[in-house]
Amino acid sequence: QKRILITGGAGFLGSHLVDRLMLLGHQVTVLDNFFTGAKTTVSHWIGHPNFELVRHDVVNPYMTECDQIYHLACPASPPHYQYNSIKTVKTSFLGTLNMLGLAKRTKARFLIASTSEVYGDPEVHPQTEEYWGNVNPIGPRACYDEGKRVAETLTYGYQNQNNVDVRVVRIFNTYGPRMNPFDGRVVSNFIVQALKGEDLTVYGDGKQTRSFQFVHDLVDGMILLMNSDETRPTNVGSSDEFTIGEFAELVREIVEKVQEEDGSKPAKQCKVIYKPIPVDDPKQRRADTSRAKESLGWETRWSVRMGLEEMVRYYKAKLDEGN
Amino acid sequence: QKRILITGGAGFLGSHLVDRLMLLGHQVTVLDNFFTGAKTTVSHWIGHPNFELVRHDVVNPYMTECDQIYHLACPASPPHYQYNSIKTVKTSFLGTLNMLGLAKRTKARFLIASTSEVYGDPEVHPQTEEYWGNVNPIGPRACYDEGKRVAETLTYGYQNQNNVDVRVVRIFNTYGPRMNPFDGRVVSNFIVQALKGEDLTVYGDGKQTRSFQFVHDLVDGMILLMNSDETRPTNVGSSDEFTIGEFAELVREIVEKVQEEDGSKPAKQCKVIYKPIPVDDPKQRRADTSRAKESLGWETRWSVRMGLEEMVRYYKAKLDEGN
Ligand SMILES: NC(=O)c1ccc[n+]([C@@H]2O[C@H](COP(=O)([O-])OP(=O)(O)OC[C@H]3O[C@@H](n4cnc5c(N)ncnc54)[C@H](O)[C@@H]3O)[C@@H](O)[C@H]2O)c1
Ligand SMILES: NC(=O)c1ccc[n+]([C@@H]2O[C@H](COP(=O)([O-])OP(=O)(O)OC[C@H]3O[C@@H](n4cnc5c(N)ncnc54)[C@H](O)[C@@H]3O)[C@@H](O)[C@H]2O)c1
Ligand SMILES: O=c1ccn([C@@H]2O[C@H](COP(=O)(O)OP(=O)(O)O)[C@@H](O)[C@H]2O)c(=O)[nH]1
Ligand SMILES: O=c1ccn([C@@H]2O[C@H](COP(=O)(O)OP(=O)(O)O)[C@@H](O)[C@H]2O)c(=O)[nH]1
Ligand SMILES: O=c1ccn([C@@H]2O[C@H](COP(=O)(O)OP(=O)(O)O)[C@@H](O)[C@H]2O)c(=O)[nH]1
Ligand SMILES: O=c1ccn([C@@H]2O[C@H](COP(=O)(O)OP(=O)(O)O)[C@@H](O)[C@H]2O)c(=O)[nH]1
Repeated sequence: QKRILITGGAGFLGSHLVDRLMLLGHQVTVLDNFFTGAKTTVSHWIGHPNFELVRHDVVNPYMTECDQIYHLACPASPPHYQYNSIKTVKTSFLGTLNMLGLAKRTKARFLIASTSEVYGDPEVHPQTEEYWGNVNPIGPRACYDEGKRVAETLTYGYQNQNNVDVRVVRIFNTYGPRMNPFDGRVVSNFIVQALKGEDLTVYGDGKQTRSFQFVHDLVDGMILLMNSDETRPTNVGSSDEFTIGEFAELVREIVEKVQEEDGSKPAKQCKVIYKPIPVDDPKQRRADTSRAKESLGWETRWSVRMGLEEMVRYYKAKLDEGN
Repeated sequence: QKRILITGGAGFLGSHLVDRLMLLGHQVTVLDNFFTGAKTTVSHWIGHPNFELVRHDVVNPYMTECDQIYHLACPASPPHYQYNSIKTVKTSFLGTLNMLGLAKRTKARFLIASTSEVYGDPEVHPQTEEYWGNVNPIGPRACYDEGKRVAETLTYGYQNQNNVDVRVVRIFNTYGPRMNPFDGRVVSNFIVQALKGEDLTVYGDGKQTRSFQFVHDLVDGMILLMNSDETRPTNVGSSDEFTIGEFAELVREIVEKVQEEDGSKPAKQCKVIYKPIPVDDPKQRRADTSRAKESLGWETRWSVRMGLEEMVRYYKAKLDEGN
């Protein structure tokens, strides 16, 4: 049994990590300011003797004693992180600095949730950890991308200078239940649109690509990495690449299948419509996960089809409750 | 007459900027923690009613009233900025944050001394401001390069969110009198070595390139930019490109010429020797300065030969004093 601190633990990824670590019998403390997360994502643990939920903004120092820190606090969806770009870059820099300071004082092992966005709009495909990236330092995504890059810089600074025991996971697009249905990311947008019978909004010509992993695979990878000896940055993501146009079709198909099974299939099919592409939107992205495979023995277990079906059922139940 | 704040004003570039702005009749306040700078670089102004020197570390907030801020505080030479990499990235991030906060409160115009290092080891040559760069986020230069990149991100964040009036100069390699002779940069190293009759240390095979501008040209550019309407990042640097091997020959030749004129030429010529190349050392660098030319009417006025001669005489006088 370990004392584990999870920043951003009330968010989408964080809450799944909490579930897994609680089930493994650890003592878990969550720090969250509830900017994009919500108490409801972890409310099932409130009252459990091993669980604690603290309202705290990581830009401010925090003291506690612990053995491991999973540092996830940071808005992750473009509309959220662009809402207050100064705050985003402060969260990334100061939040990471404070948690590294805490790790140094307590000798806790520190894992940061970095991102495939450190590769920006990549010119190397698929992306290996050796690739230095192609990021616009002053564009609308910079607060997030450069914030994460400099957070990695700080992390290895603490490793080299203060012997902090660090792990860096570069997370590729991840989806699953509890993703905020209104956070503007593509998977939640498409599913909610399809379930409501609205048009699916593809940005640009839909030829840009992404690879989507199901949240349980990611949580596997994070826990494996934390408890491994791999201290280099490690990609965790899917290598199953879709164009966004294809992906819209797939979501529509799976939503229809689920609706058919439930006897709730509407008469008319929803359409795919095209909207302007956001500035600096990466044109391609696919994880090279050789390192995760070699160092952690990690592999994805969920196919996109299985994962999407699970998520569609979850959102459908939520929407039905709402009615 | 304006109230002008210069952070890092006791450093190499800062002290030349102080000279120029003092001669123009402004009120100048210097903030410096004397990490790589020294009081002696501005001691000739101490006691002047328009001048003030404050020992202050920019990672801490600072309050004053002013009209313009030139934000230069940051170690610039690789051995110095790698000495304490955490401190370097803190100086870059927190120093810039504090000075932007000050600019926001006072409505002062804010200029940051950024760097050609935001382009890293460039794959586009020469480098225009549109190029996004090729920087290793976790290498030994990252504390400086990523620190400056995120400082630019913050700067444009304050422009967009808080209407702070910002200027960003991306400075390419600059040399001149008052460069710390022991700061490890190539121009000071070669000149001091040649003057002492020691071997000139070329790192690697000497085929990597740089373009060197004389400090007076840079100061012209910074003052022009501060007082122009150009708010985009602007390169200021030389487009006269040398391999480091060629540059060693040039320095040796100019030192010999100066020594000959002084009647102090030693019998034996100093040699060029080769040392290991530092990790991630950029292979090529040359400024595309079309923007500075169009927006500011800026052009270099000093040839490398003229500038080097001036600097050799300065160092020679210093060394002779020392004897
Ligand atoms: N989901 C993905 O596809 C993905 C991909 C790459 C990286 N990541 C990273 O994983 C982490 C979690 O992402 P997510 O998808 O769960 O996003 P999310 O927005 O659902 O969760 C982020 C959590 O951090 C909290 N938070 C934000 N700022 C905070 C602050 N200053 N102090 C304290 N708490 C704060 C939010 O309230 C929220 O609970 C983030 O660091 C993100 O950058 C996610
Ligand atoms: N000289 C170049 O070729 C070059 C090229 C690109 C960019 N720059 C930038 O120009 C600026 C000045 O460079 P320089 O060549 O004069 O270097 P320098 O080291 O001579 O000067 C830096 C000054 O900043 C001060 N300083 C450092 N950390 C500080 C802190 N935390 N608080 C207060 N003061 C601090 C130092 O004491 C020094 O006086 C730097 O921002 C550097 O990144 C220089
Ligand atoms: O238990 C701790 C220890 C440190 N810090 C913060 O972490 C940062 C970095 O701490 P460190 O000790 O590395 O450096 P310093 O305090 O010298 O900046 C500082 O802002 C501390 O306030 C924290 O939040 N919790
Ligand atoms: O309703 C939407 C939301 C997003 N996208 C596109 O889907 C891709 C993934 O977007 P998301 O915001 O989920 O993640 P990121 O761009 O950070 O990978 C991007 O190309 C978006 O432009 C889309 O076509 N429709
Ligand atoms: O005159 C000032 C005003 C602000 N700041 C610092 O600048 C930073 C950013 O200030 P801002 O007002 O933008 O944001 P805050 O973080 O205070 O909300 C903060 O650390 C302030 O302490 C400063 O050093 N001098
Ligand atoms: O004694 C020296 C110092 C530097 N360099 C090389 O000269 C170039 C410029 O180095 P400097 O540190 O002056 O600036 P920067 O690398 O930041 O451009 C780099 O390729 C260095 O490896 C060299 O050959 N000998």
